[in-house]
Amino acid sequence: MNDKYLKRLTYELGKEKLDAFLICPGEEFKFLTGFDPMFCERFQGLFVKKSGEAFYICNLLYEEELKNALPGSIKIYSWFDGERMTDVVNKALSSEKLIGGRIGVNSTAQGFNLLEIAANMKVSFVNGKPLLEKIRMIKDEDELDYLRYSAGIADKVFEKVLDIIKPGVSEREIQEFLMESMVSLGGDTPECIVGCGANSSYPHYSDNKGIVKDRDIVLLDYGCTYRGLYSDMSRTVFVGEPDAKLRECYELVLRANEEAEAMVTEGAYVPDIDKKARKILDEKGYAHTLINRLGHGIGYTVHEAPDIKQSNKIKLVKGMAFSIEPGIYIGGEFGIRIEDIMIVNEGGRGERLNKAPKELVVL
Amino acid sequence: MNDKYLKRLTYELGKEKLDAFLICPGEEFKFLTGFDPMFCERFQGLFVKKSGEAFYICNLLYEEELKNALPGSIKIYSWFDGERMTDVVNKALSSEKLIGGRIGVNSTAQGFNLLEIAANMKVSFVNGKPLLEKIRMIKDEDELDYLRYSAGIADKVFEKVLDIIKPGVSEREIQEFLMESMVSLGGDTPECIVGCGANSSYPHYSDNKGIVKDRDIVLLDYGCTYRGLYSDMSRTVFVGEPDAKLRECYELVLRANEEAEAMVTEGAYVPDIDKKARKILDEKGYAHTLINRLGHGIGYTVHEAPDIKQSNKIKLVKGMAFSIEPGIYIGGEFGIRIEDIMIVNEGGRGERLNKAPKELVVL
Repeated sequence: MNDKYLKRLTYELGKEKLDAFLICPGEEFKFLTGFDPMFCERFQGLFVKKSGEAFYICNLLYEEELKNALPGSIKIYSWFDGERMTDVVNKALSSEKLIGGRIGVNSTAQGFNLLEIAANMKVSFVNGKPLLEKIRMIKDEDELDYLRYSAGIADKVFEKVLDIIKPGVSEREIQEFLMESMVSLGGDTPECIVGCGANSSYPHYSDNKGIVKDRDIVLLDYGCTYRGLYSDMSRTVFVGEPDAKLRECYELVLRANEEAEAMVTEGAYVPDIDKKARKILDEKGYAHTLINRLGHGIGYTVHEAPDIKQSNKIKLVKGMAFSIEPGIYIGGEFGIRIEDIMIVNEGGRGERLNKAPKELVVL
Repeated sequence: MNDKYLKRLTYELGKEKLDAFLICPGEEFKFLTGFDPMFCERFQGLFVKKSGEAFYICNLLYEEELKNALPGSIKIYSWFDGERMTDVVNKALSSEKLIGGRIGVNSTAQGFNLLEIAANMKVSFVNGKPLLEKIRMIKDEDELDYLRYSAGIADKVFEKVLDIIKPGVSEREIQEFLMESMVSLGGDTPECIVGCGANSSYPHYSDNKGIVKDRDIVLLDYGCTYRGLYSDMSRTVFVGEPDAKLRECYELVLRANEEAEAMVTEGAYVPDIDKKARKILDEKGYAHTLINRLGHGIGYTVHEAPDIKQSNKIKLVKGMAFSIEPGIYIGGEFGIRIEDIMIVNEGGRGERLNKAPKELVVL
């Protein structure tokens, strides 16, 4: 168990007047317990009480595995497929004196299971995702080093992937190459988006049915974990010479990326960074096409606090890590995104973790 | 859009006194719309009203993609990262006259987002997973054919995988072989569990760090989709001669599997099938080790209705599809499972879809 973070969580429970916190399997669970059980439709999760004690509820199917993975001090309440899950949860929450309590829940807690539980006993669940993100927002020196290493994997893969991008190659082939390359360099849980032509205009495109054509645009967005810490980088490249409009858009996005990144330092006001990037895009009237936040925090999950956006009115603090990813997206035509991970490092300075070149590439 | 199933859903909404149904991305969404968008932490989903009309709420990031994927009649309400998601949801539910309403939710609706929405407007969500499973429980002839094809892929892979199982091979290598083989035979979304030695005793083992040893037991559980319909098959094989106890357990599990399967026919009472298998395992006192249901329904998701278990007091109907998977699990020692997919076919007879041999295999 990650005692440092469990202590922080317990401290926050007191502050937020929560009686307990439910953490279901997934990245947030793995990060706290070091274990990543299969998570099917059967309700399971770790309950951390404000006293710091914890217990677990799962189907009998998982009990042995959890018993081995969790410290012996954590009591496990299990239910059998033949029983009603809510009967066992009711018994567990009664024994643990949580009936009538307020329980924060993490991001993987399944809606239908929470609804089923709340319909069968007096307990109120509240969105605890922001609280979990808060305790992870400031990275320590080891964590910053793992982020650096993870970003380094993405950088190395970029050099290699350029060799395979050419007319006739499919988005899926590029995707598989990226995934396999990250794994071969020691990265875990690789993820990526590959969009060519008009598909690049959908920031979270995932269909992967496209084929690279002659004179095409290819957007690559990918990352992986190293010791649990994520990388996430985007580059946009051209197959054949881009026309004047594409070239102009690329240069705008690149400037927005570089000038926003240059503002990153301890004490910088987050909305100012977002504003800077949008102002540059608006020199040619493109700010309205940047339909998402300028950046997202990153760490043990790929999207976490702090968001880099207007409504996040905070100042940067040492140990924060986040993306800067301006883009221009013309729906159905093209999309250009350039994304790096930035940290506010131990010295309080902005440090760009991705070193992969950003100049316009024509293949 | 899958009009047949949308009509069934609308009909059930009326019966269940629900004002609408929320379906978030995932298999249940893909099956209804033919589309599978990326689903991050940003709230999104299709709302189907009891009138049959539908609308969609998503982040601006996904609007273009959804607009192209969904019929033009479906209005899309989108929110921008800089705004509060709940403000836009509130506006949408107000326009659609759903404030104060009861809304069923599918299995992928994220707890934290539902809690955030319910904390900001008057709306009540209810667990709609059983309702969605109900409308999918009876498969038509095409769907049964796709299940047959999908099971055939699993069968073919079984013959091939036996060639690579030997001392020194890792669980991960076997897993990769299974996944790649299913894909190369036309299967999509391959999934598998590989557990050797004591790891086989955890029915949903997922650590994959084990290595096959000399005189070992290897449990394989895998499947994929064909045209969206899943296969799911388990076989347990031995590397080197098993001892008398393992051989006895294997023969018991095999008999439980075969005799339970022989009971499958139109009109059979589900609890009787479960009871039969457990009675056979109990000839040697092993029924208590079968810590899960005897079987689960299968279709557009790998686990759906009907469960084959004591508490599911229904009779089998033509068009149902489910697994029969008795097992003996001695925690920390070994696990043996033999699983086939069975259907009640067009003629009302039980039909075993998996033809892979079940006799004890010694490699």
